[in-house]
Amino acid sequence: MQITLSVEGMTCNHCEKAVKGALKEFEGVQGVEVHLESGNVDVMYDDVNVTKEQLKEAIEEQGYDVVS
Amino acid sequence: MQITLSVEGMTCNHCEKAVKGALKEFEGVQGVEVHLESGNVDVMYDDVNVTKEQLKEAIEEQGYDVVS
Repeated sequence: MQITLSVEGMTCNHCEKAVKGALKEFEGVQGVEVHLESGNVDVMYDDVNVTKEQLKEAIEEQGYDVVS
Repeated sequence: MQITLSVEGMTCNHCEKAVKGALKEFEGVQGVEVHLESGNVDVMYDDVNVTKEQLKEAIEEQGYDVVS
């Protein structure tokens, strides 16, 4: 499945890498696209292996706010 | 000696770390302070070991513009 999370605080390529890296740690995550201008993060994942809540927490652990 | 470089493009803590890390690679660099809001980077260094030009280049290699 694919979801789009709305994330606040990502400003640069380092932020993009930090978020991508954190999400790709999960076995079930197949792809991540980060759109810095909008703050949108598209995640393709298998919800058998990972939950939306886990994805959100992983982003927040990197220091960003997930607003939806 | 201490200089202040004016740097464009640093937006977040990752940027701060990238710049600090690059400057601290030089043996002659004793201290680095990064001020994200202003873009100022204070560098304390021994000019026997490293030149201002080398400091500027190291910052630019991280992807930022040193304007002065």
